[in-house]
Amino acid sequence: MVRAEIITIGDEILYGQILDTNTQWISLELDKLGIKTIRKSSVGDQASEITQILNEAAERADLVFITGGLGPTKDDLTKKVLADYFDCGLAMHPEALQDVTDFFAKRGRELSDINRDQALLPTKAQFVPNKQGTAPCMWFEEKGVVWVSMPGVPFEMKAIMETEVLPRVTKHFKTPVIFHKVIKTVGIGESYLSDLIQDWELALPEHIKLAYLPSLGIVKLRLTAFGEDLPTLSADVETVLAQVMPLISSYVFGYEKEELAEVVGALLRKEKASLGLAESCTGGHLAHQFTQISGSSDYFKGCIVSYANEVKMDQLGVSSSILSEFGAVSEACITAMAEGARKVLGSTYSLATSGIAGPNGGSTEKPVGTIWIALAHPGGVITRKLQLAGTRIQNIHMTSLAAINLLRRFLLHDLN
Amino acid sequence: MVRAEIITIGDEILYGQILDTNTQWISLELDKLGIKTIRKSSVGDQASEITQILNEAAERADLVFITGGLGPTKDDLTKKVLADYFDCGLAMHPEALQDVTDFFAKRGRELSDINRDQALLPTKAQFVPNKQGTAPCMWFEEKGVVWVSMPGVPFEMKAIMETEVLPRVTKHFKTPVIFHKVIKTVGIGESYLSDLIQDWELALPEHIKLAYLPSLGIVKLRLTAFGEDLPTLSADVETVLAQVMPLISSYVFGYEKEELAEVVGALLRKEKASLGLAESCTGGHLAHQFTQISGSSDYFKGCIVSYANEVKMDQLGVSSSILSEFGAVSEACITAMAEGARKVLGSTYSLATSGIAGPNGGSTEKPVGTIWIALAHPGGVITRKLQLAGTRIQNIHMTSLAAINLLRRFLLHDLN
Repeated sequence: MVRAEIITIGDEILYGQILDTNTQWISLELDKLGIKTIRKSSVGDQASEITQILNEAAERADLVFITGGLGPTKDDLTKKVLADYFDCGLAMHPEALQDVTDFFAKRGRELSDINRDQALLPTKAQFVPNKQGTAPCMWFEEKGVVWVSMPGVPFEMKAIMETEVLPRVTKHFKTPVIFHKVIKTVGIGESYLSDLIQDWELALPEHIKLAYLPSLGIVKLRLTAFGEDLPTLSADVETVLAQVMPLISSYVFGYEKEELAEVVGALLRKEKASLGLAESCTGGHLAHQFTQISGSSDYFKGCIVSYANEVKMDQLGVSSSILSEFGAVSEACITAMAEGARKVLGSTYSLATSGIAGPNGGSTEKPVGTIWIALAHPGGVITRKLQLAGTRIQNIHMTSLAAINLLRRFLLHDLN
Repeated sequence: MVRAEIITIGDEILYGQILDTNTQWISLELDKLGIKTIRKSSVGDQASEITQILNEAAERADLVFITGGLGPTKDDLTKKVLADYFDCGLAMHPEALQDVTDFFAKRGRELSDINRDQALLPTKAQFVPNKQGTAPCMWFEEKGVVWVSMPGVPFEMKAIMETEVLPRVTKHFKTPVIFHKVIKTVGIGESYLSDLIQDWELALPEHIKLAYLPSLGIVKLRLTAFGEDLPTLSADVETVLAQVMPLISSYVFGYEKEELAEVVGALLRKEKASLGLAESCTGGHLAHQFTQISGSSDYFKGCIVSYANEVKMDQLGVSSSILSEFGAVSEACITAMAEGARKVLGSTYSLATSGIAGPNGGSTEKPVGTIWIALAHPGGVITRKLQLAGTRIQNIHMTSLAAINLLRRFLLHDLN
């Protein structure tokens, strides 16, 4: 198995001024290739610290990724330290110089000396082009290890990895043949899901591994198959997936990178149906889940965020007697909100939310976390009561997911 | 200067299944105390790997933070490895046992053997209570180093750090006297801000340092003063701040952890004024910025997300002639939207957004990123045109910030 280390260079990460998301991304990509990350480290912008971690990594790893420290300013030391470490000098690299010259010319900006110097590379480096920026990427094969030095700007690093580095890695190393499938679930917690599928998990064939990747309200299952050829592995994964689907199909909303609102949007588009919303406690968050998907204007009509009771009455037609008798957090109110949104927005379906997101506003009868959601459709209204226990933001997020999932299951005729 | 290392233990971080946010948070807290983080590392759930990193850290640091690997399952090895490393056994700790017993009793759940064993601690550990969970926190003074082992669950770790560990750290180590002040700006990029204040920055007294902490649309300036006593440092920081404020006051919206929508909410509350919104391209994101603030129902009436043109007409009263003549992304339309929202929601002020967030929908005349925002107030309407160049999500986010900032500057009589 190929062993990799990931090193992040930069005071701004070491002192916590920015959050490092690069190492997670890199290690997930390596994991997909069957390369094992054995250590992640961050060090500051000091030559001695950088040299020390390079020495340590050379002892442990076959492949070392280094991000950061490649900017044009004098606190960016990576190139100089690498040249010293590999015992070579820096020289102007013609191809790198052409790239940086073109980069500035395209943007109508002048190439300063300091930017020109970005094309100075350690002479033992293989130049790897960076189409997104001016900091170079470098590949070294030294001391029995492959070293890849990349800029720390996330979108530059990711583009270089995907287009240049990962293809070189799979060519250089004999990585195992691996097939992944990610199954995305909603509406069930990790421990319940794990209980539900434990017999199946224990019976998985030796060459297929399962990982749980939980986040707020969503649990991803990742099946990874190791073997000789992709078509066989893909078929093997589909076989075990078919065995577990009867147990979990109601929770599975998509695969790989599909988002819940995107999946529901595709169902609406297929039906040539449209959606309107009435939000109280989610306060616009639910609408944002739909509208952040490009193309959602095909089916998303709009939303009434009715925070004040008079907006519930004036814009959605909720009667004052419902509000005075049952309050805004009630089945009667959520029903009227959903019906009102469907009517005034002229949509096929509507979703509504109303509840106490917290941290204040609860009572003995309706504690913080008491939330009603509803779906209005051409044949009537379906309501659900939630009792949540998170922070304000978590409760808002979980309510939006529950509402979108209610519509998903309705559209799939999977509500009981 | 006290030198600290932060070690994260767990395969789920090493292989990228979850994003590590703990180390950033810890290093920011240490930085506030004048403690220098010199290395961050992540290793997997293997005893040999954990022992190796402990040995390395002992060579370099005065203070080592370890998170993770304290769960009840057998892949959580931290306690066992620490006991071996410090050459002591594990024993049931009475106070820890009491805490874990109480934790389960309060939730009406049975205390299993596996959970009972969470109170087994290395005998050289000082027990540090964890009020949020069942995994213990431990403090060791061994091998000339202070070691703090904490659970990896972020909210548990943060609560333990704030209430127990940081007070012990400042008691144990002679940390410098430090005063921090964070100044939050909006509406100006990092490089422009840096140009604007460079003379002031170069003239800062030796004992005051400036850091730029940029994020999307917001740049924080952090002033850090080192010295003998807090009142003097605080006065020194206020003095230099007063010097720079004439240059940047229009951009400064708050201090420390204040959020932009929270600051604007406080201004509205003070005026006993209310706010309504009409959103097109931001699609609910702008409403969410206000409603995620607890207590926003005091001034936030509601929002019409008018994605479809018929919603702009029916709910906001935008005339069909405006839409046919100028289109939805126009000064005429944004004016009508803002006026309509103010009228139908019955609010003192209203904000409106309409534009092309991308990635599709642009034209030569109105390319992706063309966005109009407007503020309607009792005396009229103010409009602004933005030309953004980010991704869809970034454009939505930047538009919301620009709209909230327009209202902020209006409320402060700071618009030109």
